[in-house]
Amino acid sequence: MPDLVRFGVSLDKSLLKKFDRHLAARKCPTRSKAIENLIREEVIGGEWLDGRSPVAGTLTVVYSHHKRQLVNHLLNVQHDYQPIIISTQHIHLDHDNCLEVIVLKGKSAEVQDLADRIRAAKGVKHAALTMTTNV
Amino acid sequence: MPDLVRFGVSLDKSLLKKFDRHLAARKCPTRSKAIENLIREEVIGGEWLDGRSPVAGTLTVVYSHHKRQLVNHLLNVQHDYQPIIISTQHIHLDHDNCLEVIVLKGKSAEVQDLADRIRAAKGVKHAALTMTTNV
Amino acid sequence: MPDLVRFGVSLDKSLLKKFDRHLAARKCPTRSKAIENLIREEVIGGEWLDGRSPVAGTLTVVYSHHKRQLVNHLLNVQHDYQPIIISTQHIHLDHDNCLEVIVLKGKSAEVQDLADRIRAAKGVKHAALTMTTNV
Amino acid sequence: MPDLVRFGVSLDKSLLKKFDRHLAARKCPTRSKAIENLIREEVIGGEWLDGRSPVAGTLTVVYSHHKRQLVNHLLNVQHDYQPIIISTQHIHLDHDNCLEVIVLKGKSAEVQDLADRIRAAKGVKHAALTMTTNV
Repeated sequence: MPDLVRFGVSLDKSLLKKFDRHLAARKCPTRSKAIENLIREEVIGGEWLDGRSPVAGTLTVVYSHHKRQLVNHLLNVQHDYQPIIISTQHIHLDHDNCLEVIVLKGKSAEVQDLADRIRAAKGVKHAALTMTTNV
Repeated sequence: MPDLVRFGVSLDKSLLKKFDRHLAARKCPTRSKAIENLIREEVIGGEWLDGRSPVAGTLTVVYSHHKRQLVNHLLNVQHDYQPIIISTQHIHLDHDNCLEVIVLKGKSAEVQDLADRIRAAKGVKHAALTMTTNV
Repeated sequence: MPDLVRFGVSLDKSLLKKFDRHLAARKCPTRSKAIENLIREEVIGGEWLDGRSPVAGTLTVVYSHHKRQLVNHLLNVQHDYQPIIISTQHIHLDHDNCLEVIVLKGKSAEVQDLADRIRAAKGVKHAALTMTTNV
Repeated sequence: MPDLVRFGVSLDKSLLKKFDRHLAARKCPTRSKAIENLIREEVIGGEWLDGRSPVAGTLTVVYSHHKRQLVNHLLNVQHDYQPIIISTQHIHLDHDNCLEVIVLKGKSAEVQDLADRIRAAKGVKHAALTMTTNV
């Protein structure tokens, strides 16, 4: 179970008013929730810059399946990084394109490395890395 | 099969030299590939800002499974957006946390809307949207 | 004088610990200050997306002064946007390049428009827009 | 004078069509210019991540001038970083707020360091760093 700590924050009244309006537009129920989200994004960003921190993330890859060698190449690259890959989901996006989501857990430098290698493969149209966290 | 067009680009010599060094560090095999990646990122960014463009994307969600109501709530929200959800993958990230990847295809405004609703749910720690494309 | 409001925030203990470590590394003195910064960035981002909000910002432009027509062109463009330009600072960055900082105040759509026009000028190497706020 | 190199790029026809539409909307006159901009942004991003590269940049600071100690503190901090500060421009943004733009040239780690110290000062509302380049 989460172990909650409560603390006070002082904020300029007019900034708080703008923030509340912003939250209403984004459907965010409470300030606490919104501030928690901002803090988590900030912490994740810091962990990502520091290559040694353990992170969780997903790599979204779109590629043309018409190149049969590409499918094998992507499998080979993934096997080189087997210890940091948890699982892979494959979607037939349309007639020409596949979308694959690779769930990753490891040091951010390794995760970034895998993303670079997949992005560099001929026929890969897009490889977007999303960093998240279990904290 | 992709229908390729070839065209010429003029670039300052010293900028090109820096770009080539940058590509070598990122393991990118050719300038054409790197430029294709930059162009695609730029086009995707534009489509995302324009809410009506059809996009493909993934939503990475991390949440604590200790709140049983949350799991039901997330399912309910997803059923409200059933036409734009292709599939969902679930990972037991650690003792406390689940990671879910939702693959989406729809107008970018709707996709963003779903992300906002899931991000706002109590117990959801992170909801990161990755926009991609089939072009 | 600023009119301060104080309110409470609840946060998971382990996330707060990571945040405190992150703040120490970035030399941030207090949590309140850090949270204020995050909130302001979020509000500014929202105002920027909504084209009608009044914003303040700076446009950093680097260009080669060897093209005399460019200098005149940049002046002409700026005069078209005179109502939203507060002032301009010019730096001789090196033998070939000028750096100009244009301070802007206006609707975010107009400000973005000016940035696009300057970025499009031949000989302009970089035109980076920084959005800020007076709140 | 710039020393131009010309090289060919191959691109999928439908991606190129979308890119051309995107450029028209952003008022960009030619593909070469747009690609040059994308490449420069990519190179600048790489230089910024590598702390030792020499960069040029601007720091946009908004603060309340009602705190007299703040003005002195900001001056003191800037003098600690005198070798990397080229010049400063000061704007009276409104009754309460000052906007200052500091033009910087130095290693990206030092520039980031100065930004962190100014951002941490009580009364500073916003400190946004824009990295640019003379290449």
